[in-house]
Amino acid sequence: MLKAAIVGASGYTGAELAGYVSRHANLELVGLYVSERSLDAGKALSALHGKLRGVVDAPVQPLIVADIAKNFADVDIVLLATAHEVSHDLAEAFLNAGCQVFDLSGAFRVQSAEFYEKFYGFTHQFPELLEKAVYGLAEWNADKIKQTDLVAVAGCYPTASLTALKPLVEAGLIDPSNKAVINATSGVSGAGRKASLTSSFCEVSLAPYGVFNHRHQPEIAAHLGHPVIFTPHLGNFKRGILATINVVLKAGTSQEQVNAAYQQAYAGQNIVRILDGEWPSIAKVENTPFIDVAWQQQGDDLIVVSAEDNLLKGAASQAIQCVNIRNGFALTESLV
Amino acid sequence: MLKAAIVGASGYTGAELAGYVSRHANLELVGLYVSERSLDAGKALSALHGKLRGVVDAPVQPLIVADIAKNFADVDIVLLATAHEVSHDLAEAFLNAGCQVFDLSGAFRVQSAEFYEKFYGFTHQFPELLEKAVYGLAEWNADKIKQTDLVAVAGCYPTASLTALKPLVEAGLIDPSNKAVINATSGVSGAGRKASLTSSFCEVSLAPYGVFNHRHQPEIAAHLGHPVIFTPHLGNFKRGILATINVVLKAGTSQEQVNAAYQQAYAGQNIVRILDGEWPSIAKVENTPFIDVAWQQQGDDLIVVSAEDNLLKGAASQAIQCVNIRNGFALTESLV
Amino acid sequence: MLKAAIVGASGYTGAELAGYVSRHANLELVGLYVSERSLDAGKALSALHGKLRGVVDAPVQPLIVADIAKNFADVDIVLLATAHEVSHDLAEAFLNAGCQVFDLSGAFRVQSAEFYEKFYGFTHQFPELLEKAVYGLAEWNADKIKQTDLVAVAGCYPTASLTALKPLVEAGLIDPSNKAVINATSGVSGAGRKASLTSSFCEVSLAPYGVFNHRHQPEIAAHLGHPVIFTPHLGNFKRGILATINVVLKAGTSQEQVNAAYQQAYAGQNIVRILDGEWPSIAKVENTPFIDVAWQQQGDDLIVVSAEDNLLKGAASQAIQCVNIRNGFALTESLV
Amino acid sequence: MLKAAIVGASGYTGAELAGYVSRHANLELVGLYVSERSLDAGKALSALHGKLRGVVDAPVQPLIVADIAKNFADVDIVLLATAHEVSHDLAEAFLNAGCQVFDLSGAFRVQSAEFYEKFYGFTHQFPELLEKAVYGLAEWNADKIKQTDLVAVAGCYPTASLTALKPLVEAGLIDPSNKAVINATSGVSGAGRKASLTSSFCEVSLAPYGVFNHRHQPEIAAHLGHPVIFTPHLGNFKRGILATINVVLKAGTSQEQVNAAYQQAYAGQNIVRILDGEWPSIAKVENTPFIDVAWQQQGDDLIVVSAEDNLLKGAASQAIQCVNIRNGFALTESLV
Repeated sequence: MLKAAIVGASGYTGAELAGYVSRHANLELVGLYVSERSLDAGKALSALHGKLRGVVDAPVQPLIVADIAKNFADVDIVLLATAHEVSHDLAEAFLNAGCQVFDLSGAFRVQSAEFYEKFYGFTHQFPELLEKAVYGLAEWNADKIKQTDLVAVAGCYPTASLTALKPLVEAGLIDPSNKAVINATSGVSGAGRKASLTSSFCEVSLAPYGVFNHRHQPEIAAHLGHPVIFTPHLGNFKRGILATINVVLKAGTSQEQVNAAYQQAYAGQNIVRILDGEWPSIAKVENTPFIDVAWQQQGDDLIVVSAEDNLLKGAASQAIQCVNIRNGFALTESLV
Repeated sequence: MLKAAIVGASGYTGAELAGYVSRHANLELVGLYVSERSLDAGKALSALHGKLRGVVDAPVQPLIVADIAKNFADVDIVLLATAHEVSHDLAEAFLNAGCQVFDLSGAFRVQSAEFYEKFYGFTHQFPELLEKAVYGLAEWNADKIKQTDLVAVAGCYPTASLTALKPLVEAGLIDPSNKAVINATSGVSGAGRKASLTSSFCEVSLAPYGVFNHRHQPEIAAHLGHPVIFTPHLGNFKRGILATINVVLKAGTSQEQVNAAYQQAYAGQNIVRILDGEWPSIAKVENTPFIDVAWQQQGDDLIVVSAEDNLLKGAASQAIQCVNIRNGFALTESLV
Repeated sequence: MLKAAIVGASGYTGAELAGYVSRHANLELVGLYVSERSLDAGKALSALHGKLRGVVDAPVQPLIVADIAKNFADVDIVLLATAHEVSHDLAEAFLNAGCQVFDLSGAFRVQSAEFYEKFYGFTHQFPELLEKAVYGLAEWNADKIKQTDLVAVAGCYPTASLTALKPLVEAGLIDPSNKAVINATSGVSGAGRKASLTSSFCEVSLAPYGVFNHRHQPEIAAHLGHPVIFTPHLGNFKRGILATINVVLKAGTSQEQVNAAYQQAYAGQNIVRILDGEWPSIAKVENTPFIDVAWQQQGDDLIVVSAEDNLLKGAASQAIQCVNIRNGFALTESLV
Repeated sequence: MLKAAIVGASGYTGAELAGYVSRHANLELVGLYVSERSLDAGKALSALHGKLRGVVDAPVQPLIVADIAKNFADVDIVLLATAHEVSHDLAEAFLNAGCQVFDLSGAFRVQSAEFYEKFYGFTHQFPELLEKAVYGLAEWNADKIKQTDLVAVAGCYPTASLTALKPLVEAGLIDPSNKAVINATSGVSGAGRKASLTSSFCEVSLAPYGVFNHRHQPEIAAHLGHPVIFTPHLGNFKRGILATINVVLKAGTSQEQVNAAYQQAYAGQNIVRILDGEWPSIAKVENTPFIDVAWQQQGDDLIVVSAEDNLLKGAASQAIQCVNIRNGFALTESLV
């Protein structure tokens, strides 16, 4: 049994992580943390997330940054479900304490200093960690994940997009002169648990946002190796992401080539479900760790659709996949 | 054409009022106001409520309290869609400026000083206005509404409850030893437009609140003249209230007596729709000024159900009904 | 006052039409019809659509096809909210009876025999009517609408798509070698009122359908004059369509050119609302006759977003716009 | 490992049962059945319920009634997620084949012949099975469940109602001259998976139904031993039931007595979660096997609120609780 702690436990992703860790055959949940001045400090996690009553009733504790070295010496795994600036500041201390760090924020996802200045508005202070961090897209980076102590778990939109597109890029099937066009819709939990007018019940309604400037666009492009236009939308549902992607294939690409690209990429990967004769939908993936993918071709035009639960494959369950890979546990332990 | 202004125009009720006034054959919309320090001041109403673009594009202006006498001298009608403490403080100034005041808050609804201390937490400073104010339950108080300049428009839950119960009380059909049991569910817009965790999209889910202590319980009981147990619920929809009410009738009350009580109460009142052979639902009333009522009897037990749009018959359209009554306009002008 | 009848009145679009006609200053609602063997025949329209109680309580009558000549001799306007095969069969009889026919189905929208065989599965029997019919996209075809008795009101997705794209095509700004990529999401009412597993409450969830083979794709392409890839989605909301469209502009196209194209196309057209600094959403247009459009450019890539109520601008209110144009009524009479 | 089969596997409850059985440490899922002429026969369960792909992909098979003796000789447990008339007809054959039968329909819930004639419209043909059947309200009937081969798993509304009320009745705290007033709202999945206008997405809206005549009213009263008025409502959500219940206590009943009644009833029962300082909501129980209960007293009036997932504690998970009790498995095996 490895000891695991969750920082940022009070949010939606933190609560999902707590559920997974508590059910995990190889993990012991040893700590739930929130920021030192959080109003939630001291409350039972199940008082914040009523669904967890009787499942995870431990309190969320204030994280004293100065005491990390001392308090986390015995902790094997730290899951950071924190804002990117918090992850940025904390990761080193946990690494120095000897923890494996699985960061669910964007703080270590793109190995480019300019990326953080342009899209996150700050200068990254830990270039050596950036370089060391492995991008936690579980089906694609298992070999590297096994050998690192710092996993930058992939973002929700990037996971939906990359899972759909990487097989095509790896197989060299996409026409290099056309951008992939990604239209994706996320449930409201993607905005986090903080109250805001944007996520108020009476204000939520299907609409685009972040057009041409969402920080997940460069994250996708960087890990795909092909330019994309990414348009996120907010949808009137709690959780889930559906991505519909238009691609222009190289002239003459056959359906067999496309099928083979996906089959080869995901053979033996049972979190990725390739659908045949039906399309992904939010309903099929919500509250599951799966990501569904299907596609259809007409001439050189290809439409690929993927769906996942943004809080799970887009965050918590993918983090657990990475934990499982890193530690040699069964790949879907605690997930399926 | 009478000149009408709306104070508190940026909220959900204010926006509905703006729509009604702008469509009204006898009213001219001369001003939209928000509090002096509101961040919304200066914005077009349609920038806050996109649905109104091309319909009401006038800006919301900061209300300078000191200038009310001067600025509202020419205004005939003021609609207060403000918080109760704001209405409490402002009403006198508008009355002194010669305006008819239609207040949609709770500030003048119950003629009892203790009520405000117990349920609103303040001591009412205007006992003479409280006494002068007429309760704006349009179908029941038309004679008094015609003769007052201060209408305290009935609350949303009270309108649903009183419309369903008053015919029975007036006809003397309810067993005096049993409380009426009101269970009602409101859409989230009832909580107003301010961001809060309670009304966040991911947090809203059918649940009771304010059990035994909601301020609408004494408002209902006071205007009904019969004790009630009132349990409000928040539902996962934007607008509408459904109230299901259990009553014990006096022994031997016949169905004919019950039917007659409703028919007499609402003859010629076409905003109240008595349903026959079907039950009210939120869908039938949302975005309409109607309130639907139906009932069924078994022995001495009676179940009455009512439904209305909480922002319309529960607020804005009832205010306009009161304006129409007060000024001798057609009863449903601008409403149907 | 012209006399107007609605055929197919029991559906969602029929009910909306009934509301508009009943409020119209220049129209008298003289008949509501359903198919001869409909189980709804004889019921009040408000018994089928509870929201209309007190507004349109007239019964829906069975349409006796053999009696059209006789029974519709005095009727000026017939609105067909019927299935495409029904409209196909009935239009001639109403035209022969001297009625103006506004057909909301796809029966007369594309002047190509193959289109009907390929996408509707039947051979069109009325080529001369097909040729005579005017496509009812109100802002674009007013001159022709004025002079015809057969208007094929534009489809819901085509209206959203064409309103967004035609200004660019007309101005010659789109790169001819790239297809426009249209991703659109419709509320469930687009599937009509018939019970089906697909539109069951527990089954509806955001998902694509009709990929590469929806019949609105050729309708859009035919009336646009530019190839498109159109991917419709079903969303978990009752009404509304949001379309997000990716276009590659001709190299070097400036933002001023794009802005000018839209401004020129929609100057004085107040049903089309061009948004500045905000994006369209379903909430802003549901239950309104408006269509909202906004766009953003990055290099030669342009994203245009439009939103409308699929039952209104995508059906009923656009039909009324066409009626108003055809008969010289005020353009937004009964609509705004 | 005991062998378990599910009859009626294609519905919502059947799919939930399949998930539980497949995760159960002591059960092997050996068969999924639908009626002989079902159009679903032969399809993978995961083709009907996409969420189960990769979890339960076995096909649903047509049940040949004549072959039950032969085909179920090796089956230990049969879970009937079938319509009441089907369960009524099939139970004996499975019992004769030596199976434990857990019936989730109403066919064996009330030991009264008249009940079936009045509320189900048929004459019960198996009075001796009716007498033998044990009502599967897991927390209350464990001793009897251990000793029977025919469990009539409690209904969804009755579970919510009885869990909330039985502690009070058992403790003798309710005033015998007043009926308990139960207002409950269920998600749409309670109506089953068959397409109908009532459960169409565009038609669903909060409304009462079955007033004074729902078949769960006598089921509740029979197993409670106190008269009730039960008013069910349909709500606009997929799953869950919230019940708000008004009770008049015997004069002078103290809060301590009420608290003690609940604490004693549910000590050690961890599927029942007694909430303190917060109210049940649908969100806290959906997709969980828990039922939440909370109450508040004012004088002799008591309001009790309970919430559960109608498909789980109201059906599938309670059936598994009964399986666990009957076979001596851990009480929450496969559930939590």
